[in-house]
Amino acid sequence: MIDTAAFLEDLDTLRRIGEYKTGVHRPTFSPRDMESRHWLAGRMAEIGLEPTIDGIGNVFGRHTGPGPHLLAGSHIESQNHAGWLDGALGVISALALARAGLPVDVCAYADEEWHFGKGFLGSRSLIGQLSEEEMDEATGTFTGQPLREALEQAGLAGRPRLVIDPARYKGAFEMHIEQGTQLEHAGLRLGVVTGIVGIRNFLIEVEGKQDHTGGTTMAERRDALVGAMRILHAIDTEFPKVCGERSVWTAGRLALDPNAPHIIPGRAEISFSFRDIDNAVMDRMAAALARIVWEHNRRDRCPATLTATSRSEPALCDPAMQAALTSAAETLAPGAWQAMPSGAIHDSQHLARVMPAAMLFVPSIGGISHHWTEDTKREDLDLGMRVLWDGARRFLEG
Amino acid sequence: MIDTAAFLEDLDTLRRIGEYKTGVHRPTFSPRDMESRHWLAGRMAEIGLEPTIDGIGNVFGRHTGPGPHLLAGSHIESQNHAGWLDGALGVISALALARAGLPVDVCAYADEEWHFGKGFLGSRSLIGQLSEEEMDEATGTFTGQPLREALEQAGLAGRPRLVIDPARYKGAFEMHIEQGTQLEHAGLRLGVVTGIVGIRNFLIEVEGKQDHTGGTTMAERRDALVGAMRILHAIDTEFPKVCGERSVWTAGRLALDPNAPHIIPGRAEISFSFRDIDNAVMDRMAAALARIVWEHNRRDRCPATLTATSRSEPALCDPAMQAALTSAAETLAPGAWQAMPSGAIHDSQHLARVMPAAMLFVPSIGGISHHWTEDTKREDLDLGMRVLWDGARRFLEG
Repeated sequence: MIDTAAFLEDLDTLRRIGEYKTGVHRPTFSPRDMESRHWLAGRMAEIGLEPTIDGIGNVFGRHTGPGPHLLAGSHIESQNHAGWLDGALGVISALALARAGLPVDVCAYADEEWHFGKGFLGSRSLIGQLSEEEMDEATGTFTGQPLREALEQAGLAGRPRLVIDPARYKGAFEMHIEQGTQLEHAGLRLGVVTGIVGIRNFLIEVEGKQDHTGGTTMAERRDALVGAMRILHAIDTEFPKVCGERSVWTAGRLALDPNAPHIIPGRAEISFSFRDIDNAVMDRMAAALARIVWEHNRRDRCPATLTATSRSEPALCDPAMQAALTSAAETLAPGAWQAMPSGAIHDSQHLARVMPAAMLFVPSIGGISHHWTEDTKREDLDLGMRVLWDGARRFLEG
Repeated sequence: MIDTAAFLEDLDTLRRIGEYKTGVHRPTFSPRDMESRHWLAGRMAEIGLEPTIDGIGNVFGRHTGPGPHLLAGSHIESQNHAGWLDGALGVISALALARAGLPVDVCAYADEEWHFGKGFLGSRSLIGQLSEEEMDEATGTFTGQPLREALEQAGLAGRPRLVIDPARYKGAFEMHIEQGTQLEHAGLRLGVVTGIVGIRNFLIEVEGKQDHTGGTTMAERRDALVGAMRILHAIDTEFPKVCGERSVWTAGRLALDPNAPHIIPGRAEISFSFRDIDNAVMDRMAAALARIVWEHNRRDRCPATLTATSRSEPALCDPAMQAALTSAAETLAPGAWQAMPSGAIHDSQHLARVMPAAMLFVPSIGGISHHWTEDTKREDLDLGMRVLWDGARRFLEG
């Protein structure tokens, strides 16, 4: 049977590492992040798994008994000053599955949260899709620190990286908070994920001319923030005409140089991304974005360049695994679950490239995530754990 | 006679303190800034002035002979990674006037460049218009460090602040680079300043809701950057309808929280300002800004608050001082000068409240300022120095 008390206790213990208000601050490879990785490796050993922390920071606990095996996990680092459940829930619930005796390899995939380079370093490394060259080039999103230097400081430099053999696994499970309000608004307690959105990331660079705000007439100036604002305004106007029903788009980061009250911004950099479950819709949005920038450059004094920096593909969840989770949910919480797509991307997206994968969502209170107030009711955590366990059992037996 | 070789040599020496590429990096009260202040005090002593560095960092060199006296100077700190002449030119040319035997008190007014609080700390302190309370509250624009702490670290805490007696002075001169392209475009070498613009500073705060970009639908989100962009777009559209012929307006700083690619911005803060020589025009622009924010709040999901943070009044230059500079310019560079307003604000604006004041501009190559590539032709520096000296002499004799 599943020990949900131990599961909740592990979650509470992990929450205290890098505690920030009611959330946590554990950026990838920071001292607190590494403390949590070593703590996890210790917990894995205690319940009989063989733990390894590999050369990209993946914490992998190998089940030593016979298969067929499952892979289960999520990430353990957090966004800056963010929530205690994002990622941690998937890792600690995987640990609970193994503790309950299921043939599960548990993994905390490193840097899902994009603190370095193109993110998802751990899950991509584990399926053999992270090159040494990419690691050489990756730098800290917030710090600018080279990844190699961060690995060195974390004591991980020179360690081999683990690559899994997909043939070992019947499938990969990941439990996660919803990070939205759909379950809450519908009064439901569980979401069986049908698929995960794809995401396309862009960098929009606007080139102006840094100058004194007093000495430069309006006719002379090339204000990079004005240029950036005009592009964002065009996106705000044009994207609703081409998007899909569930598309989202965001400029989450805007960096001005020099960003001082009395200097005309000489340069603006926008990190822009959009998500959808359908590649055809995303192709349409990408074309609209290119047109907006092209049209901007035809008219504006501050030329912009558009770079597609990375993309992840939409991924469908495995029907048999969904069915197992659905049966478990309907048994343990009749009528209190729904099938739903995931608007956020997750490590499972990468695992789905090499093996069947599925995800289970529990509600986020107020939909809040990536913020320290992120939370989920304890009874929902408890229910999610029992459904995940029952679903995994059903899938193994099926 | 005026020794322009010594003047240029002093400028070159000062340029090496806090050198950054071909410019300088001397933020107010930084180690390099303090090094430059102590160096200046030494130079003052060498030419027979009585130097003091006071409790706000003003470096004041008092002429020990009989009057009537002139006050001359500018600021010695720089914007971050900025030019070698902005401010320094006015200080070093004042030193040269004193070296030439004119009855001049030389002053480097602290923090014209707004590294702390409301800026212009030195010139305001010198005319008795900087309170202890304002100093208690002031913090670093870029660092957040309390002014009091910065003064402590700079070794200035507890020193008395100098307040001048306006009756001692016949007037205050300041030579400065133009920080614009009007002289260059007109093929001229000198500008006799007729007046200095006023400036009004505002903070626009936009309140959104920080959230995950994937889990939050477009209908649910409150994106503070989208809110900020809409306000900036309204300013871009509406201000041309109410501005004056030479008005300028700028959002030089936009700070997003948290400013990460995959998090919906929860908060945006815009530092906005405009300038004009005419208070009636600025009243009109202020009213337009208030209407834009009011209208935004009527329609948008991200409410904005508008705060007028500070203002400086337009100042006219003294006619007799202008006439003296004009005569000198026409004698030494016939036809190569013009009368012109200053689009930038300067310490002279504050001195003009208590005594006659005037400014002389030399061209900025390419109009560039507040950037390390800022420069002026050496022959223009040389000419400016000679005209300032001749103008000061004429004014004293007149």
